[in-house]
Amino acid sequence: MGENTFGERFKITSFGESHGDLVGIIVDGVPAGLDFDTNFIQHELDMRKSGHSTLTTSRMELDKVIVLSGIFDNKTTGAPICLIIENKDKDSSKYINYKNILRPSQVDFTILKKYGGYADYRGSGRFSGRITAGFVMAGAIAKQILRKYDISVYAYTKSIGNVVDGENYDIDNYEKFINLREKTLVRAINTEKAKLMEELIKKVKTQKNSIGGSIKCIVNNFPVGIGAPIFNSIESKISHAIFSIPAIKGIEFGVGFRATKMKGSEHNDPWIIKEGKIQTEKNDSGGIIGGISTGMPIEFTVAVKPTATIGLPQKTVNIEKMNSVEIEFHGRHDPCIVPRVVSVVEAMAAIVLIDFLLIEGVIPTVFKP
Amino acid sequence: MGENTFGERFKITSFGESHGDLVGIIVDGVPAGLDFDTNFIQHELDMRKSGHSTLTTSRMELDKVIVLSGIFDNKTTGAPICLIIENKDKDSSKYINYKNILRPSQVDFTILKKYGGYADYRGSGRFSGRITAGFVMAGAIAKQILRKYDISVYAYTKSIGNVVDGENYDIDNYEKFINLREKTLVRAINTEKAKLMEELIKKVKTQKNSIGGSIKCIVNNFPVGIGAPIFNSIESKISHAIFSIPAIKGIEFGVGFRATKMKGSEHNDPWIIKEGKIQTEKNDSGGIIGGISTGMPIEFTVAVKPTATIGLPQKTVNIEKMNSVEIEFHGRHDPCIVPRVVSVVEAMAAIVLIDFLLIEGVIPTVFKP
Amino acid sequence: MGENTFGERFKITSFGESHGDLVGIIVDGVPAGLDFDTNFIQHELDMRKSGHSTLTTSRMELDKVIVLSGIFDNKTTGAPICLIIENKDKDSSKYINYKNILRPSQVDFTILKKYGGYADYRGSGRFSGRITAGFVMAGAIAKQILRKYDISVYAYTKSIGNVVDGENYDIDNYEKFINLREKTLVRAINTEKAKLMEELIKKVKTQKNSIGGSIKCIVNNFPVGIGAPIFNSIESKISHAIFSIPAIKGIEFGVGFRATKMKGSEHNDPWIIKEGKIQTEKNDSGGIIGGISTGMPIEFTVAVKPTATIGLPQKTVNIEKMNSVEIEFHGRHDPCIVPRVVSVVEAMAAIVLIDFLLIEGVIPTVFKP
Amino acid sequence: MGENTFGERFKITSFGESHGDLVGIIVDGVPAGLDFDTNFIQHELDMRKSGHSTLTTSRMELDKVIVLSGIFDNKTTGAPICLIIENKDKDSSKYINYKNILRPSQVDFTILKKYGGYADYRGSGRFSGRITAGFVMAGAIAKQILRKYDISVYAYTKSIGNVVDGENYDIDNYEKFINLREKTLVRAINTEKAKLMEELIKKVKTQKNSIGGSIKCIVNNFPVGIGAPIFNSIESKISHAIFSIPAIKGIEFGVGFRATKMKGSEHNDPWIIKEGKIQTEKNDSGGIIGGISTGMPIEFTVAVKPTATIGLPQKTVNIEKMNSVEIEFHGRHDPCIVPRVVSVVEAMAAIVLIDFLLIEGVIPTVFKP
Repeated sequence: MGENTFGERFKITSFGESHGDLVGIIVDGVPAGLDFDTNFIQHELDMRKSGHSTLTTSRMELDKVIVLSGIFDNKTTGAPICLIIENKDKDSSKYINYKNILRPSQVDFTILKKYGGYADYRGSGRFSGRITAGFVMAGAIAKQILRKYDISVYAYTKSIGNVVDGENYDIDNYEKFINLREKTLVRAINTEKAKLMEELIKKVKTQKNSIGGSIKCIVNNFPVGIGAPIFNSIESKISHAIFSIPAIKGIEFGVGFRATKMKGSEHNDPWIIKEGKIQTEKNDSGGIIGGISTGMPIEFTVAVKPTATIGLPQKTVNIEKMNSVEIEFHGRHDPCIVPRVVSVVEAMAAIVLIDFLLIEGVIPTVFKP
Repeated sequence: MGENTFGERFKITSFGESHGDLVGIIVDGVPAGLDFDTNFIQHELDMRKSGHSTLTTSRMELDKVIVLSGIFDNKTTGAPICLIIENKDKDSSKYINYKNILRPSQVDFTILKKYGGYADYRGSGRFSGRITAGFVMAGAIAKQILRKYDISVYAYTKSIGNVVDGENYDIDNYEKFINLREKTLVRAINTEKAKLMEELIKKVKTQKNSIGGSIKCIVNNFPVGIGAPIFNSIESKISHAIFSIPAIKGIEFGVGFRATKMKGSEHNDPWIIKEGKIQTEKNDSGGIIGGISTGMPIEFTVAVKPTATIGLPQKTVNIEKMNSVEIEFHGRHDPCIVPRVVSVVEAMAAIVLIDFLLIEGVIPTVFKP
Repeated sequence: MGENTFGERFKITSFGESHGDLVGIIVDGVPAGLDFDTNFIQHELDMRKSGHSTLTTSRMELDKVIVLSGIFDNKTTGAPICLIIENKDKDSSKYINYKNILRPSQVDFTILKKYGGYADYRGSGRFSGRITAGFVMAGAIAKQILRKYDISVYAYTKSIGNVVDGENYDIDNYEKFINLREKTLVRAINTEKAKLMEELIKKVKTQKNSIGGSIKCIVNNFPVGIGAPIFNSIESKISHAIFSIPAIKGIEFGVGFRATKMKGSEHNDPWIIKEGKIQTEKNDSGGIIGGISTGMPIEFTVAVKPTATIGLPQKTVNIEKMNSVEIEFHGRHDPCIVPRVVSVVEAMAAIVLIDFLLIEGVIPTVFKP
Repeated sequence: MGENTFGERFKITSFGESHGDLVGIIVDGVPAGLDFDTNFIQHELDMRKSGHSTLTTSRMELDKVIVLSGIFDNKTTGAPICLIIENKDKDSSKYINYKNILRPSQVDFTILKKYGGYADYRGSGRFSGRITAGFVMAGAIAKQILRKYDISVYAYTKSIGNVVDGENYDIDNYEKFINLREKTLVRAINTEKAKLMEELIKKVKTQKNSIGGSIKCIVNNFPVGIGAPIFNSIESKISHAIFSIPAIKGIEFGVGFRATKMKGSEHNDPWIIKEGKIQTEKNDSGGIIGGISTGMPIEFTVAVKPTATIGLPQKTVNIEKMNSVEIEFHGRHDPCIVPRVVSVVEAMAAIVLIDFLLIEGVIPTVFKP
């Protein structure tokens, strides 16, 4: 109830269902006078869409962005921007069969308990990963504004199963490795690791199984002194946004859980002067201290669970008959959603950070000519 | 700016500074007619206070709760409840010396950049862990209401440095191990592990160093069907609240980051019927699917970084002179804050969960006689 | 910025422009399981549309409601409901001529100063009365739910210029006078007065002028004990909503401004027992005391200014040339918008009141079968 | 529930009760670096306090402001500022007698229905006008910041009963008539009218009765282009705030209800150029068009009802015995609260306007040295 709006000054409202007519987003609070770049939004959408490689579900999502409001003479007007994609290649027939059989680790049971049987269950309805296409469109606008301030938000696949890319990438060379990232189907940087990841995904797909992974996100050039202690800490806002993405199980900033085994003398980031500017010698803090940005790159890593829907037989319950049954799911699904979540993580981070900058007055409400 | 209020129906507003007159919290939205239990609030405060063992800072915090508003005839009235503790044993002399020397991984630099030199820097002011005493008082009221509904929120120290208690505790036996927890200075369950943890903390203290750790929190008997997809998922709200606690570096739900290495067939929790009730055979999901409670225990783990303030010499910068200096900090500080954060984690979880139950109408606005 | 969302549990988000593709509303927080009545929404839209009598603008608004999301099997699902109407009969040619000439008491100047020339000025864009069609669609859903609880929200034209219907209508006879209201073009109750109002509007239209008026709104059967002191008083929320409607200049509850000339002994409403129930002998308080409902009808009156756009010559400024000019506006406009605002006032009142009932848990989040 | 916080960036949280220990306010979002002027806050409090003339209740309110947090070295720090006044001269004995007898047009019945008998009824508890002392303290901080930008917020008593000061005061001469205002006990401008108002109040006091009145508020020099269409219009926010004050029955902007009888040609404010600046020839719009400031003075008038508590015998109900009774109230009360509400109206207007300026980035988050 009232749960589909997020953000304070850069405010997004999500609507639509996986197998309804469309999925959409309203972006409110975009400063007037921004050149509106539909191509960039489309590029971001393409980064998350499926059906375009052997690694993803065979559902062909065309996902062409349609602008319904808020743009005039190719510029933002200060009015709410409504963006949608239509649902074309939907096949709901598979879902009806499973209406009374609870898919393991899927939302059937929790939805039933919350919405009393009235929710649109087709393709998981509001709980589908497809809803995040709206996030990506809103994030594309946020990123476009951040670019005006030389702030970049880039994520990549850090691990799939046991294939881990543990390298700490040189933060000055983003354009280069982003190019690399977009060339790999798994959205990884290291081409050797990418190959191993692809092989692993293909293998679990053959096994009618799925696999989890992790995504690292790095924000460069975010200004120092933004954020707040306690409730509006950068970590609080980013984690809130990231856990709005289905399938996320964890988030850590900087060294994260490794900090639990470290001593203060190891973990502390010494302050140094570099080119006349104060910064830290290393960045175990992940660019945030006391909830406020340090001026160093903001870094966080998220854990993505394996896709719940698998082809292998699973034990479960028929809620109508209240008996135990076995289920094999033959619908279309991704063996690993990590590569597709990469752009969603970027989008949510960008949405949160632009909100901070609008709140603090760093970004004006109008981009004057 | 406007950043010290949290929650929708159960709304808390934090105020006060570490070395000002007091630290306080206003709790708005507590249903009228609740028997107000000051002793329980005091007990919760005592769980986080320092100066009472060799493991914590020598700052003696008496921390007696004082009720300023909202209670009449020993019952809640529906009015905002203002609770404070006074700051007695404060010694600001140490901090003044360090005003221009940035303490590594401490908030001096970020505060300066955000507040332009006007913030109360004494004892880290609004950024002090002492602010969380207010959270604990508000959490005590939340817990008291949850108890009326047989919902319990219990956290314990899962690890200090490399000493890890990996056991998955039997969720039916809380009262017992809570009693154990309160007997150990480190707020752990396993007495053997607790002893090792204590020894480790004493050792790093002798070394003028500090150490991190992790805390696990388990919520029992939370009703099924509460929460929401996307922005108001239980994970979003809990993580938002938890990252409001200083020194938290990560959070994971259920198996968390381990999910990144699991296959769907391993991670999925099969639905079963037990005593006529639908539940899951195991709980890798941590009691939440699709942002909504499953009826199984809600489980999450948080990473706590080592205390930034240590006695060892550290490299840093004098911002007035803009040169490199070495710093040794002799103020009072905790070698490990994990045991003290345990009750703060419980408090923040309870605050979020009571808010969900008020929003969903599970808990009424008045406890009728 | 971020200014197009209203409400807490029953949350509406407005989008679209007067001369863009569409005008829309997202309604979030509608309980699942409600039979969705498109016909009733259409009826409400028809009540505010123009082009259907000699009294309104000649712009023919077909205004057929289109449902984009949130409905499944003709029932609400708990998901956000997106409703739009398309903009068909739009003629922007007139507006372009006046781009640099400030229309008196119109938004040209304030929009320019706020949005720096980027706003969609055609047909006043986001500032058009047409935006309120979205409010009416959302209000229709709110009213439909209120009807389930026997709560009715009815408004009527109380005055046009000096023609005032001062009668205090018998509150038990609504169905009857609502039927009357819908039969009069001016949305009045008294047919004699309605005739005089119509004549007055026709007269000012001939004079190329416009005229103001007032609207009274009465809510029957709203439960006692809903609302709050200070910031969430019923008056605060209703007035906030009502002033979201363009052209409103004032609001008063109960006897309103007449109270300024009354003594306490006159104004006070004596408590009486009637049919075993406590109520007041009269209702000068307008059904609200201390921000909380008394169980008596909630009554308020709003002032609507005369349409700013008139055909008579007016003195104004050309902002490009910065000189004084005279303007005569030949676009389509209403000589009196009061009759069309009646359904908007009802809608905003219904939206606020349903929000209160959801917050207080009077209305559940699911209408169980 | 959760209803005592107001504002977005300049956020106030109200707490305390009329006959509890204190009444307080937390002001969050005050920019750091403001010289904190306790004397000015005290002056504003003195403007609303009672017991200092024959016109008000004999309750002696000393109302000395006490600062509990947020100030360091006499400057604001960016932290929440907690301000309280203690309740000294309270006499609750009178109230207990009337516990079961509903005072006409008083909150006894609505409180009972909302809070189920648990509310602190002494002196009307949270519903007392005394709560507005907190608003005045917060408003004093807001006004102090507005003064830095040459924005003034001034209100005065426009009418008491039938004694009306209808003059449209020259807006350039505020300091002068403010001085006049503070010299009259009724907070009026015109000394002749003030004398008549005083006499009227004394007369109704002798009659054991009370009288209503109206207050006009004028904001000078507020920048053009601030505000928003629909939900965040200046009128929406100001009316929301004003109806948070007990006893307010109506609000109108500019000519307000008179607009209902005007033609467009009369009501429209012609744009003119004066000293090279665009403004309107008159100001019937009250400084706001389309929810956005025009740069002309923002003007609104509010209706205040007569005090409900009077000494004359009144008919009412004993809810315990459920019978009709007569009541005569002998507690201390104001025969007319209009003069005391004047400073509260100013405070709420200032709080809303500073919030707009912070949101739009006109006022920074830190006042740099």
